[in-house]
Amino acid sequence: QTIRGLDLPTYDGAGLRIGIVSARWNSIVCDSLVAGAVEALRSCNVSDITIEHVAGSYEIPQAAQVLLDSGRFDGVICIGCLIKGGTMHFEYISEAVTQGIMRLNLDYKVPVIYGILGCLNEEQAKERAGVDGAGHNSGKDWGITAVESCLLTKKYRKVLGS
Amino acid sequence: QTIRGLDLPTYDGAGLRIGIVSARWNSIVCDSLVAGAVEALRSCNVSDITIEHVAGSYEIPQAAQVLLDSGRFDGVICIGCLIKGGTMHFEYISEAVTQGIMRLNLDYKVPVIYGILGCLNEEQAKERAGVDGAGHNSGKDWGITAVESCLLTKKYRKVLGS
Amino acid sequence: QTIRGLDLPTYDGAGLRIGIVSARWNSIVCDSLVAGAVEALRSCNVSDITIEHVAGSYEIPQAAQVLLDSGRFDGVICIGCLIKGGTMHFEYISEAVTQGIMRLNLDYKVPVIYGILGCLNEEQAKERAGVDGAGHNSGKDWGITAVESCLLTKKYRKVLGS
Amino acid sequence: QTIRGLDLPTYDGAGLRIGIVSARWNSIVCDSLVAGAVEALRSCNVSDITIEHVAGSYEIPQAAQVLLDSGRFDGVICIGCLIKGGTMHFEYISEAVTQGIMRLNLDYKVPVIYGILGCLNEEQAKERAGVDGAGHNSGKDWGITAVESCLLTKKYRKVLGS
Amino acid sequence: QTIRGLDLPTYDGAGLRIGIVSARWNSIVCDSLVAGAVEALRSCNVSDITIEHVAGSYEIPQAAQVLLDSGRFDGVICIGCLIKGGTMHFEYISEAVTQGIMRLNLDYKVPVIYGILGCLNEEQAKERAGVDGAGHNSGKDWGITAVESCLLTKKYRKVLGS
Repeated sequence: QTIRGLDLPTYDGAGLRIGIVSARWNSIVCDSLVAGAVEALRSCNVSDITIEHVAGSYEIPQAAQVLLDSGRFDGVICIGCLIKGGTMHFEYISEAVTQGIMRLNLDYKVPVIYGILGCLNEEQAKERAGVDGAGHNSGKDWGITAVESCLLTKKYRKVLGS
Repeated sequence: QTIRGLDLPTYDGAGLRIGIVSARWNSIVCDSLVAGAVEALRSCNVSDITIEHVAGSYEIPQAAQVLLDSGRFDGVICIGCLIKGGTMHFEYISEAVTQGIMRLNLDYKVPVIYGILGCLNEEQAKERAGVDGAGHNSGKDWGITAVESCLLTKKYRKVLGS
Repeated sequence: QTIRGLDLPTYDGAGLRIGIVSARWNSIVCDSLVAGAVEALRSCNVSDITIEHVAGSYEIPQAAQVLLDSGRFDGVICIGCLIKGGTMHFEYISEAVTQGIMRLNLDYKVPVIYGILGCLNEEQAKERAGVDGAGHNSGKDWGITAVESCLLTKKYRKVLGS
Repeated sequence: QTIRGLDLPTYDGAGLRIGIVSARWNSIVCDSLVAGAVEALRSCNVSDITIEHVAGSYEIPQAAQVLLDSGRFDGVICIGCLIKGGTMHFEYISEAVTQGIMRLNLDYKVPVIYGILGCLNEEQAKERAGVDGAGHNSGKDWGITAVESCLLTKKYRKVLGS
Repeated sequence: QTIRGLDLPTYDGAGLRIGIVSARWNSIVCDSLVAGAVEALRSCNVSDITIEHVAGSYEIPQAAQVLLDSGRFDGVICIGCLIKGGTMHFEYISEAVTQGIMRLNLDYKVPVIYGILGCLNEEQAKERAGVDGAGHNSGKDWGITAVESCLLTKKYRKVLGS
């Protein structure tokens, strides 16, 4: 019996405003992940959802920041799909994007969810995006994750009266 | 005879306010680590302990920051359990979380304890969390570590009269 | 059938001011990438294009920043070609440059496109730069990527009236 | 004949105030390194030496910052001993601590010496700490290194009259 | 026929003030690199050259910052030689130094040239430093690189009238 897994409670995210920034690279995968995130957000009563696109995962942090600077979002979900290729592009991009999104979390003090797959081959990407009916769509986890983190953030902000 | 090991003195942490942010992923492991940390904190006379949850380890730094911004905590313990999977998710998440928590230490100038296991398999996670009676519960170390670092911080702040 | 690939829409970048900073190292590759980026920018109606050079990829972030500080550019494309050599120079340079360009994106809040090849040998570099008629010229992707990200940035800035 | 090695001149560090932050983990090694650093500092006429402890190397940057914030130190030496274990703890801790101490150097503009061993086994740690009479005690290098860097810093500060 | 290589134009660096910070570790290599950089700077008509030393490469960013803070330099060249040893010291130091120097470039907005060799053995270091008449002295590239980047920086500053 595995100890692994994520068992998320149900949350009521009514009133939350969520932005999604998705990469266009490997769009079959990304589109499925975005759909999963949207489905999960709606299941938590989130209705204010904005979706924007950029070319690749490296462009996501800057775009997410543009959304955050608008003040129109309580949280942002970053969705991309990096797949290992022949060069070292995958490794350096992956590292910089993962740290760039972390920086946004700490600079803006709101949840910026990391929905970037870092796969070694196409099969892994399909399985984690629920493409062709394969595997679990991780986008669903990210939608609920966003709601939970936004609610925690709001709870502490309320205490502060800010 | 090994040179390895940690031999911590006994500390009196009475009056310290400690926050714990735990991930839900692999909750059997995380719950045990949290219990170990709480037990250690209480053994140091810490009674003001707040526990919050987020979905995964990547969400921990932002949540820890929310707690820190509230001004209600002298230190925060971050608890999570990352286990190597088929993709490179583990590697990039681990790096960004470890550096994100380090940033919080230096941005907020209070101890933000790194209690994230970075395991190659489930057995390693169980052993380090004392699950199923296996191994030592690292959470206990982190509780005492938090108290020691908080006391050192207070000692120097007192000198400064701040 | 592969799930990989990038299918970019057509954009109208008329009025955008784009800077390109290219490394001189491995100039056959870099010159071809720059030519590809310029061609793509022009196909999007971008006519205000400035090209500057520095010696190597490590020098690019500082030079890109100089351009950004001038206030004369809506976005910058960074073009370089790092090839694995006998020492570890490639690995450390690649990492620092990738993260340095990410920092510029977030510090300046404008698109700073990552056009640095990280190749294990010369053949990989040629293939990705369209040198000797081989492969696809990635510079073309970067030109269109720059336009898309600049337009997204402008759209949100306009909403803010800033 | 090797080209490797460090041949440090003799320095007069009279009047310098040096803090040392040491980890408790693997204290046989750390204590020896601290003793070596103190011996070297005294040989450079440094008499104002303060030693503080934290549990592990990850806690060192925050503690070093507390010392730096006190304004009572011209430089700080960070001493710890990380040894590779079964999980990836070693790798992520090592990276974050090395970069955290670098951040302190640049944030505080005073020398914060990196005295963290990153060993693959216990023998390497003993050899570099002069434990059991084995090898050279690296702590001695770090003591002199601290003095040299502090003197260089003072020289340029004096020119500025600050 | 290789596509690799660097073909730098000739620059007139008259009036530029350049600082060089060199490590003492492996001084045969570092001294040769410094000599190469100085020779190249002089060939570009740079006469205001200041050379300072610190113990190791890790100490270089803090020392380079001290020089930059003095306001007396248009650019700084960082010279060091890291050679892989038995522990992981090489890897972590290399990464932190490479990123620390990148930070200086972006914090100070002047060229801080990366002249740190990251070698797997002594032969690689000798070959890249022109020691014993072996190979090309990379220091020469770094001297010209510094001049080019300083001139680009000045060109854009002049436009701004700052």
